[in-house]
Amino acid sequence: MFRTAELNRTLARDDYERQVAVLREELLGLQSELQRADFPVVVVFAGVDAAGKSETVNKLNEWLDTRWLTVRAFDRPSDEELERPFYWRFWRELAPRGRIGLYLSAWYSQPILDYVYGTAAAERLDEHLERIQNFERALADDGALVLKFWMHLSKDAQKKRLKKLENDPLQAWRVTARDWEHWRLYERFIAAAERTLLRTGTSATPWKIVEGWDERYRAVSVGVILRDAIRRRLQERRMLKAVTDGVTDDTLQLMVERSMLPGQPTVLSALDLGRTIDRDVYREQLLQQQGRLNQLQRKARARGVTTLLVFEGWDAAGKGGAIRRVTAAIDARDYQVVQIAKPSDEELAHHYLWRFWRQLSRAGRMTIFDRSWYGRVLVERVEGFAAPHEWRRAYAEINDFEDHLIEHGIVLLKFWLHVSPEEQLRRFEERRTIPYKAWKLTEEDWRNRDRWADYELAVNDMVEHTSTRRAPWVLVESNDKNHARIKVLKTLCDRLEKAVKNGGNDKPNGKTK
Amino acid sequence: MFRTAELNRTLARDDYERQVAVLREELLGLQSELQRADFPVVVVFAGVDAAGKSETVNKLNEWLDTRWLTVRAFDRPSDEELERPFYWRFWRELAPRGRIGLYLSAWYSQPILDYVYGTAAAERLDEHLERIQNFERALADDGALVLKFWMHLSKDAQKKRLKKLENDPLQAWRVTARDWEHWRLYERFIAAAERTLLRTGTSATPWKIVEGWDERYRAVSVGVILRDAIRRRLQERRMLKAVTDGVTDDTLQLMVERSMLPGQPTVLSALDLGRTIDRDVYREQLLQQQGRLNQLQRKARARGVTTLLVFEGWDAAGKGGAIRRVTAAIDARDYQVVQIAKPSDEELAHHYLWRFWRQLSRAGRMTIFDRSWYGRVLVERVEGFAAPHEWRRAYAEINDFEDHLIEHGIVLLKFWLHVSPEEQLRRFEERRTIPYKAWKLTEEDWRNRDRWADYELAVNDMVEHTSTRRAPWVLVESNDKNHARIKVLKTLCDRLEKAVKNGGNDKPNGKTK
Repeated sequence: MFRTAELNRTLARDDYERQVAVLREELLGLQSELQRADFPVVVVFAGVDAAGKSETVNKLNEWLDTRWLTVRAFDRPSDEELERPFYWRFWRELAPRGRIGLYLSAWYSQPILDYVYGTAAAERLDEHLERIQNFERALADDGALVLKFWMHLSKDAQKKRLKKLENDPLQAWRVTARDWEHWRLYERFIAAAERTLLRTGTSATPWKIVEGWDERYRAVSVGVILRDAIRRRLQERRMLKAVTDGVTDDTLQLMVERSMLPGQPTVLSALDLGRTIDRDVYREQLLQQQGRLNQLQRKARARGVTTLLVFEGWDAAGKGGAIRRVTAAIDARDYQVVQIAKPSDEELAHHYLWRFWRQLSRAGRMTIFDRSWYGRVLVERVEGFAAPHEWRRAYAEINDFEDHLIEHGIVLLKFWLHVSPEEQLRRFEERRTIPYKAWKLTEEDWRNRDRWADYELAVNDMVEHTSTRRAPWVLVESNDKNHARIKVLKTLCDRLEKAVKNGGNDKPNGKTK
Repeated sequence: MFRTAELNRTLARDDYERQVAVLREELLGLQSELQRADFPVVVVFAGVDAAGKSETVNKLNEWLDTRWLTVRAFDRPSDEELERPFYWRFWRELAPRGRIGLYLSAWYSQPILDYVYGTAAAERLDEHLERIQNFERALADDGALVLKFWMHLSKDAQKKRLKKLENDPLQAWRVTARDWEHWRLYERFIAAAERTLLRTGTSATPWKIVEGWDERYRAVSVGVILRDAIRRRLQERRMLKAVTDGVTDDTLQLMVERSMLPGQPTVLSALDLGRTIDRDVYREQLLQQQGRLNQLQRKARARGVTTLLVFEGWDAAGKGGAIRRVTAAIDARDYQVVQIAKPSDEELAHHYLWRFWRQLSRAGRMTIFDRSWYGRVLVERVEGFAAPHEWRRAYAEINDFEDHLIEHGIVLLKFWLHVSPEEQLRRFEERRTIPYKAWKLTEEDWRNRDRWADYELAVNDMVEHTSTRRAPWVLVESNDKNHARIKVLKTLCDRLEKAVKNGGNDKPNGKTK
């Protein structure tokens, strides 16, 4: 979930200055338009210590017109506040319609910290998160534009930043013993954070994860996301008005969704595609891992351990080949491969998840999805088959669906097979010239290729929203097919071995139904 | 919450036959229109045993065209089902777009029973309810019309029905030892039911509580609610289409919301307005209760026990008089009376609950709201100041708001002062003739009077949705002002006495913050 914010994204100074000059002007313009609008903008900042939450708020404070801005940071509750229900402090500071409110250490702070320090159990965290859901939904239902920024740093990066701050005489005061204590509790903090983001991120109240390492990058990212969100909302209001007024105007088209700055690395571009494996080593390892898989799947079958594999990836990235290397090792009665293409009429008449629910296998079997429900946030998003509100809410729907699987004890593995555009082109050309491969290449493949950047963005967002500790994405470097196949087999075997030992997946709460 | 379904509503046979003849035709017509629509109808039945769930489903099965109908009852999971995640059985039985699905003992059954039998803790129930929320929201987001009927009987009524069934040789098989066991667990069952309905009833997936005593009444009620919901949804789809097509048509106006059959008793009509109190007894009791209140409020102040009173009621029902009898007993520094009239500009610029949050007092004080947040579901609903989707979702927002208060330990009491239309008219006339009372009577009072039936319906719905075990509505028979005042004072004192003893309200979970 946070991997997309551990890519060392930075912004050079001159680039920064050029962008900020434009951005400030745009933000001021939107702010003045916002004054006549009928909704407030509620912006919440949370995240890892030293990831620049307050610095970013300071920057926005500098860029925006402070007359129409509310900035609030919440410390320990005052006596006045303690004598009222906890949310009183937040309600009274809410920005009115037409204004922007920036909130630091607000309603997310205490629930997460209570959990991290162990003063509150997981159930208590969940209760808090339900409160938050209700609160934010009430605001959003009332029209508020709710935006939440999670400023992120990896554990290493956090350490480096804390050290750096300590070494700077002007900034050293920022680092306290509490910060180092938090750093030691990093894993627990991230676990709470993931749970929090999963439960409170909705399409009406989305989280935006921002990498906090580079101060220029993070400030511009937040500024751009804020600008786009306000602009889009104002545009939607104008469109709605135009529609009800009967006006149609092409200039009212909604702009394309961009969740990150152009030119920045994605989870895919950060992969090392140079990884290869020697032909001889490959042959040996293939036999070895397939033998292992065969043994493991027999045990899994006997113990009722069900496995579900998802394969997604670029056209010609080698999904089919990888799948065949898996199935070759398994008794045909123990697996099924489900090819996901265009839905049938019957499937179209149901919720888009219905076709996947119906494919769930009995206990002890393996189901392999060649493409999957992730089509909703990949092809359907990029090609416009799903409207923005549909694919945006799909992240939560998919997480919920996978939660059903995991809670039932199913071993779930998701592979993204990644190749470079150059390698894909090479394979396309090869297909074109080899007769028995030519059928595989369609017009659509060439068309999809033109949208590489859009797909890459969609994959980045998909990993950000749906790679969780319980159901992580495995990104497979696939320029070398042999390396890809071995990585898939080995990951699968390792996971299955653990599951067979424990009699199911390693659900953190160990519940069984 | 269930009081509105314990009013012995019945339907005479000839009335029933007349209504059913029309209703069947309407339902068949809608069903045929539905076939071309792009959404399914998902109808869930749950409720008290012997309240006629399956009988009602049988009736619908008789009335509707079964070719376009899916009826499913879920028993113990099969082996096939046990080997998949629990919701698999529900997903695979979902009705496709254009069809109606009726579901018995479906996703609500097991969570509630597990809790009632004590095999699962409250946290487990909450987890199940969150699953349900996500499931139903996914369906609703996808366009499904989701309707949930809670068939209700009071504990006495349930006993009578079980006895009656046992005595009927043709029906005796329906009653099992399990039914009697459930009857003995009635209170626990109702507690779970209230929690379930509160958490899973949203404006997109509403609960409809239907009194299950009379088989004719309940069948027609369900049929009418179903008819109106489908008709409204089809109308909304047509309107949306008309708007996007640029067509405007007055016939597309949404019809008025009716949640119960006309002519049936409401919670208000079931009150005994003949209750009076002698003048001498009144004087004595007034002094006595005021003295008691004075003592109790001193203690409450000392112990930090905060009280919040809500007064709602008909115009001229005596809210002001009752409030003055309360405040007369209390130190002026310990209370404030908040008059709720038209919101200020500043208040209008915020969420409608903001103005109430800001009035919450410090610990140990009493705040009296003369009219309140309930205006949202009363005057704003009836006068159309709030759109249907706004006041419908307000029930959940209000319950959430009051939950904040109760969890904080605040003693919350809600009074509805009820007078008959005749008594109101008498008081209006009196006001008109007595000079020092004339200012109280406005044009608006006369106008509201014309909408008596709409208001009564709104009050009935309000009690149904917001009278909970932790924050019940106190319905006060107020044709006799003296009786009303004593009832208010006594209820308040009793409640405060308990709270002062326990150091807060009697929150069932005993949490403190």
